[in-house]
Amino acid sequence: MKKIKIKKPKLTKKLPRIKRKNQAPGTLVYTGEKEGQDLHIEVIDYKPDFYNSFSTKEIEEAFNKKGTGTITWINVNGLNNIDAIEQLGKHYNLHPLILEDIVDTGQRPKIDEYQDYVFVVLRMLYHNPQGDFVSEHVSMVMGEDYVLTFQESDGDVFDSVRQRLSTAKGRIRQRGADYLLFALMDAVVDEYFTIADDLGEKIEDFEDRLFVNKNDEDITQEIQSIKKEILRIRKAVSPLRDIVSRMENTASTLFEESTKTYIHDLADHIIHVSENVELYREMSRGLMDMYMTTISNKMNEVMKVLTIMASIFIPLTFMAGIYGMNFDYIPELHLKYGYFYLWGAMILVFLMLLYYFKRKKWL
Amino acid sequence: MKKIKIKKPKLTKKLPRIKRKNQAPGTLVYTGEKEGQDLHIEVIDYKPDFYNSFSTKEIEEAFNKKGTGTITWINVNGLNNIDAIEQLGKHYNLHPLILEDIVDTGQRPKIDEYQDYVFVVLRMLYHNPQGDFVSEHVSMVMGEDYVLTFQESDGDVFDSVRQRLSTAKGRIRQRGADYLLFALMDAVVDEYFTIADDLGEKIEDFEDRLFVNKNDEDITQEIQSIKKEILRIRKAVSPLRDIVSRMENTASTLFEESTKTYIHDLADHIIHVSENVELYREMSRGLMDMYMTTISNKMNEVMKVLTIMASIFIPLTFMAGIYGMNFDYIPELHLKYGYFYLWGAMILVFLMLLYYFKRKKWL
Amino acid sequence: MKKIKIKKPKLTKKLPRIKRKNQAPGTLVYTGEKEGQDLHIEVIDYKPDFYNSFSTKEIEEAFNKKGTGTITWINVNGLNNIDAIEQLGKHYNLHPLILEDIVDTGQRPKIDEYQDYVFVVLRMLYHNPQGDFVSEHVSMVMGEDYVLTFQESDGDVFDSVRQRLSTAKGRIRQRGADYLLFALMDAVVDEYFTIADDLGEKIEDFEDRLFVNKNDEDITQEIQSIKKEILRIRKAVSPLRDIVSRMENTASTLFEESTKTYIHDLADHIIHVSENVELYREMSRGLMDMYMTTISNKMNEVMKVLTIMASIFIPLTFMAGIYGMNFDYIPELHLKYGYFYLWGAMILVFLMLLYYFKRKKWL
Amino acid sequence: MKKIKIKKPKLTKKLPRIKRKNQAPGTLVYTGEKEGQDLHIEVIDYKPDFYNSFSTKEIEEAFNKKGTGTITWINVNGLNNIDAIEQLGKHYNLHPLILEDIVDTGQRPKIDEYQDYVFVVLRMLYHNPQGDFVSEHVSMVMGEDYVLTFQESDGDVFDSVRQRLSTAKGRIRQRGADYLLFALMDAVVDEYFTIADDLGEKIEDFEDRLFVNKNDEDITQEIQSIKKEILRIRKAVSPLRDIVSRMENTASTLFEESTKTYIHDLADHIIHVSENVELYREMSRGLMDMYMTTISNKMNEVMKVLTIMASIFIPLTFMAGIYGMNFDYIPELHLKYGYFYLWGAMILVFLMLLYYFKRKKWL
Amino acid sequence: MKKIKIKKPKLTKKLPRIKRKNQAPGTLVYTGEKEGQDLHIEVIDYKPDFYNSFSTKEIEEAFNKKGTGTITWINVNGLNNIDAIEQLGKHYNLHPLILEDIVDTGQRPKIDEYQDYVFVVLRMLYHNPQGDFVSEHVSMVMGEDYVLTFQESDGDVFDSVRQRLSTAKGRIRQRGADYLLFALMDAVVDEYFTIADDLGEKIEDFEDRLFVNKNDEDITQEIQSIKKEILRIRKAVSPLRDIVSRMENTASTLFEESTKTYIHDLADHIIHVSENVELYREMSRGLMDMYMTTISNKMNEVMKVLTIMASIFIPLTFMAGIYGMNFDYIPELHLKYGYFYLWGAMILVFLMLLYYFKRKKWL
Repeated sequence: MKKIKIKKPKLTKKLPRIKRKNQAPGTLVYTGEKEGQDLHIEVIDYKPDFYNSFSTKEIEEAFNKKGTGTITWINVNGLNNIDAIEQLGKHYNLHPLILEDIVDTGQRPKIDEYQDYVFVVLRMLYHNPQGDFVSEHVSMVMGEDYVLTFQESDGDVFDSVRQRLSTAKGRIRQRGADYLLFALMDAVVDEYFTIADDLGEKIEDFEDRLFVNKNDEDITQEIQSIKKEILRIRKAVSPLRDIVSRMENTASTLFEESTKTYIHDLADHIIHVSENVELYREMSRGLMDMYMTTISNKMNEVMKVLTIMASIFIPLTFMAGIYGMNFDYIPELHLKYGYFYLWGAMILVFLMLLYYFKRKKWL
Repeated sequence: MKKIKIKKPKLTKKLPRIKRKNQAPGTLVYTGEKEGQDLHIEVIDYKPDFYNSFSTKEIEEAFNKKGTGTITWINVNGLNNIDAIEQLGKHYNLHPLILEDIVDTGQRPKIDEYQDYVFVVLRMLYHNPQGDFVSEHVSMVMGEDYVLTFQESDGDVFDSVRQRLSTAKGRIRQRGADYLLFALMDAVVDEYFTIADDLGEKIEDFEDRLFVNKNDEDITQEIQSIKKEILRIRKAVSPLRDIVSRMENTASTLFEESTKTYIHDLADHIIHVSENVELYREMSRGLMDMYMTTISNKMNEVMKVLTIMASIFIPLTFMAGIYGMNFDYIPELHLKYGYFYLWGAMILVFLMLLYYFKRKKWL
Repeated sequence: MKKIKIKKPKLTKKLPRIKRKNQAPGTLVYTGEKEGQDLHIEVIDYKPDFYNSFSTKEIEEAFNKKGTGTITWINVNGLNNIDAIEQLGKHYNLHPLILEDIVDTGQRPKIDEYQDYVFVVLRMLYHNPQGDFVSEHVSMVMGEDYVLTFQESDGDVFDSVRQRLSTAKGRIRQRGADYLLFALMDAVVDEYFTIADDLGEKIEDFEDRLFVNKNDEDITQEIQSIKKEILRIRKAVSPLRDIVSRMENTASTLFEESTKTYIHDLADHIIHVSENVELYREMSRGLMDMYMTTISNKMNEVMKVLTIMASIFIPLTFMAGIYGMNFDYIPELHLKYGYFYLWGAMILVFLMLLYYFKRKKWL
Repeated sequence: MKKIKIKKPKLTKKLPRIKRKNQAPGTLVYTGEKEGQDLHIEVIDYKPDFYNSFSTKEIEEAFNKKGTGTITWINVNGLNNIDAIEQLGKHYNLHPLILEDIVDTGQRPKIDEYQDYVFVVLRMLYHNPQGDFVSEHVSMVMGEDYVLTFQESDGDVFDSVRQRLSTAKGRIRQRGADYLLFALMDAVVDEYFTIADDLGEKIEDFEDRLFVNKNDEDITQEIQSIKKEILRIRKAVSPLRDIVSRMENTASTLFEESTKTYIHDLADHIIHVSENVELYREMSRGLMDMYMTTISNKMNEVMKVLTIMASIFIPLTFMAGIYGMNFDYIPELHLKYGYFYLWGAMILVFLMLLYYFKRKKWL
Repeated sequence: MKKIKIKKPKLTKKLPRIKRKNQAPGTLVYTGEKEGQDLHIEVIDYKPDFYNSFSTKEIEEAFNKKGTGTITWINVNGLNNIDAIEQLGKHYNLHPLILEDIVDTGQRPKIDEYQDYVFVVLRMLYHNPQGDFVSEHVSMVMGEDYVLTFQESDGDVFDSVRQRLSTAKGRIRQRGADYLLFALMDAVVDEYFTIADDLGEKIEDFEDRLFVNKNDEDITQEIQSIKKEILRIRKAVSPLRDIVSRMENTASTLFEESTKTYIHDLADHIIHVSENVELYREMSRGLMDMYMTTISNKMNEVMKVLTIMASIFIPLTFMAGIYGMNFDYIPELHLKYGYFYLWGAMILVFLMLLYYFKRKKWL
């Protein structure tokens, strides 16, 4: 009996814990895990007929873009640099609670509208170039002529937006900061589709594996880990419905009417992706049932082998046992062909049992 | 022991993946799988007392129907022909987001109302003449005197509408473009009933099979595939409730009051079909439970055979074993009829066990 | 081994399929199964101090009751007689969609208010005198001084209403057509209570059977059939909530204020019956679990018998086997009372195992 | 093999059936089971500085309390005395539908507001002094200066109210009829907490029993009966939310503003008790799962005993069988210590198997 | 066979029972379990530039703080001291129902707005310094210039607030009583995150244990106890959504507009924590399934060992039994190498069976 190997799968990524020390509200505490991150600021400045972009590590260099008639996108990477973020907050006159939320990586997606700007928190899910799954906290502040985005580290899903800005492709350079905000959110949501599709593929591959697989691998934990991944995506997507619906219906003058058509389209995408996630959730529920029946079927097979072997050979052994007895007088023992008669009887019993199992379809 | 055959069912049709490259919103990308499709345009032009219909491969030929006092239905097959669709869009002044949705075959059913037209996306489910299940993306644009429909390929569920138009049967030629839109949607929904009924029949056949079937076929995956089919239909039907309710309550002047009675009727049909789908879903949930009990009952049967065989013959073999021993002095061995007395005892034991199992109703 | 008998229950009544050919909306197609039904019209005409009732097979005979100051109830049996229904529809000026719904037996319960009349579709559930369960499509049209009811065949739940009309018992002859409509709906809903109670009794009987029953009958399918019956009743009852609430809140002058008190009472009954159905649904969910544990308990019992028999006799057989060996020198064989010593040892082992199983409470 | 005893629990109290004959609406039919009940009327008459209480069997004696500036509480026990109730109804001018509901013991909890009075139906759940669970139908009518309560039989949860009235404790004698109604409802709801707590204790005791209990008692039905009890309480409690919220928001002048604060408090209690019931429901759902795993664990234990016994002794018996053969030439048989060598080998095999099972942690 | 040890886990903490004697509403009855608690009152008095704090056991000492232009926080520990609480209630003019709720430790979280003050009931969950889980009833009354808090015993989660008050850190001393109320509630909610995170960790540890653990420990009850803990947290958190949303939207002048921004932030936190709890609930649901498959897999393994041992040795024993028979004429017995031929045959059978099990992947 070989020991059944339990291939220990890479333990599922733990759900993130929330660091929360009893701080006064409005106190900035970076709660993520990327402590040593350097500050990296990317500034893109554009008008329909103008485009300028540069990188810097000094927050002050990003400030002189205000009031030049251009739209400015300041993308801050490295949330652990709290001083720089506070400086930026002061420059753009941001509420302390916003700054707190920017650096609180456990923050739930939400939208807050203020007098002069709109604050949006999202969760960005993507696979980085190394193929690892990344779930990153992204905050965006949109004012009249600027969009500020804050990310934990370099690497994001905004490359297509950058490219459209630099090449003036599409209508993005003709539009205001609200359209830029929409474009960035759209890029985040588009990535959800990829993530959700990957998940769907995983579930369907699992169904096939469960069906074909006849060895003893215990896949309970892998199923549980898929369920957890679905829960994580849901947690990122489901608050978005509210956020976008509030953007659609906002009375804020920061949003132009023509942009709202695009936001409505974004809302459709979000409903679509969250419907897909629900669908995968339903499907994943069936996986455990499938696995249970697989186990039970295997057990049935094992039991049948045992039953057939034992039912055939136990009676035959009994027959042989009879004629191994040492009674003084057992007439059959002295028949000339007694031994062969017995073989005949045993073969008969064997065939009858075989027929019985055949008729029961156990063979 | 025959190897238990696992009849591998035709793997369930995978859920479609969504192709989504990071494009600027409003960019036309055909996301379906029917790349090599030729453009095929069908134009039907009618008034109460006039009917004309022709086919073409050139989009321009469809244009000169505007403003002739007739209602024009332009049915475009072949969404991969993006240039033609853009041309048509320009001619009818369609918003870029609409054109994007027309060619995005993964688009969720929805309605968008614009100033001059209404845009509806549906999912058309039907069995084609070859008996294959087809799930096709259909978009419809309805303006004051025209309806544009866009399909991935030839073959649809609109033949009854075409026939009523050509034969002037019913009130369809008396009515405006809004009634044509309703008639087309009604044809799509009518087909859902057929699809849902097929599904119900499939589930009930399964229940019977599960009950009668005593062999080892593993039907777990087939049950899972039924569940998936139900989810797919739900995904097509459930957004329709919203769509039709918005059509009922629209303030748009494109819809005549008298048509709304018909749309209300359509809304009833949609609720009805989606209630049926929910019902089938409930029923399909019970299938796996039924299967589990079937497996367990089989196992019980197997175990009983083993238990009865072993419980009867192991004690008898023991009795025979006793008198096979070679002790110098075993008094029974030298009784004249010792052998026959033993047979008597063994038969007695056999009968007692038989009675015991009979009383337990295991026999 | 007796073949385990699977008592095949009468296969559950299939859910009805919906016949739906692609017809123009408003086309009359009888979709039920009672094709050969004769037309049978029952006319009841009454005032507080007047009562007249007759039966006929000619639809025209029912027409001369209009405008005589009386309330007329025309009850049409036999929906396959489409011509007669169309004639009646023309006489009472009914919308084509209503006529379509009257003969469409798969129609979902609903209410439609028109200018001059109210249209109600119900599902009538009852046991006919032969004890069969009947689910029949009933439509009602209520105008100012008439109520039309349409049924698939003779036999209904309206006898108490007929009796109250003829004997002038209660307030029914004092009231208008709206009260008659209420009384008819009330009669339908009262019958739901009977049906739901029967169901509840069935489920509770099942619980007892499941508990007492120790033989091998497979009752999976019967449980599934109860679940299906519950789903069918729910489908009939749940749309009624909406219907009656709309009747309560209607602005239509067809309903007198004093009748609304009765309709409110009817609404209470409907909520009550649908709560009961939900309760039975919850209970039926537990049945399958109960059955599963019953199977598992039986299996446990079977396994214990096997384990006890095998665990006792296999070691004893081994002991006997030892002294059946033919070694030249086995000292025990030549002890004078060796045979009896061995018996002693075997009895000791037997008792120890007995004690072990006793302590484990397996005996 | 002892027959496994199935302790048949006292069959669960059946859910009550609804007697409903097709009666005209407003017809009084007593639907309860306490047919032979004598009428017993209790009258309490009070002002801040006045208190009078008496019992009677004649309904007329209760009538002369109207218009004396006092608040009158008339408590009628014995709903089968339909005449007396009709007389009372006439005296207080009650709507026929109210009288019907008073004697219909299957009536669902509800509130109906009329011009001059408010009608409330409740379900009173309590343990009577004999310790039996009682579920009784209670109706209350509250007018400007009177409260009428109707119960099926003597025995209720109102003793604390009676005592506060007679001893003038608390503010009850200072307040109007609306406060009395509140106090009575509050007494009913307080009793729900006791019932719900008993249930919670029962479920937790069950969890412990399930865990400790290793014998074969089948507790499936007891679990099912707990679930049913929960459903019954829910049915009593859940309509109360609506009732009390309507009392809070009523425009009726029968309720003083200051009483509404108390009603709001009552609403909180009802939400609390219904949350508790939901919680117990969740917990009861886990019971069946716990039981299933208990059964499976027992089965595992049984199988291990069998496997260990069989795996050890079957090979040993085989070894003994080898040397019981009668071949002319079996060299080992003639070794001087052959018998003892074999014993050695058998002990070695025994120890190896023991070690194997030990390492598998089956021992 | 070693008796399988069932490690009895510390029985899960019972859900608290609700003591509720039929009292007149507004009667003060302490319903908690900490009867012997001494009264301990903590008074903190502050202005932006002033801070004073002292402890006392006499309630009167806390009274002279009214009307001095400062904000006063009176924290009362020891709810069993009913007289003191009544005195305080009289001093601050609190409604009797409030006082009743303050000492009723089973009270559900809620908010009640009165003319001059706001009353909030919360459930405070935390681990005390001894590491025990504490669930405590906390009530808060907030008036224009005071906040009263009532706790069952010393020990709470407010230390960070005390520290911020004494060190004048953050904006707390600049703000009014409404901000203090918010700060206290925020401290309670922050602790929920810790509790929820602990729970999540517990569930994930369980998943790992379930997977790795191969011994017979029965963990059903531990899973059930986790589920119960989740239910308890839910019961504390879910009413908070309502409470905070009512604080956000209140028309009461007790709340300054600038404080509402902070309350909105608190609302976000509450949604976040309750989403996390739901997520853990979903995960805990999967645990029992995982455990069931673990049991079934173990059973499969046991059965395989039995099947392999029995299937191999039963046929071999039969073969040996054949040649142990005493027939006069068994030709094989007299072959010179008959014994060795038989060994050869037995080894062949052994290898074939081994190969068979190998191919089935049971070895």
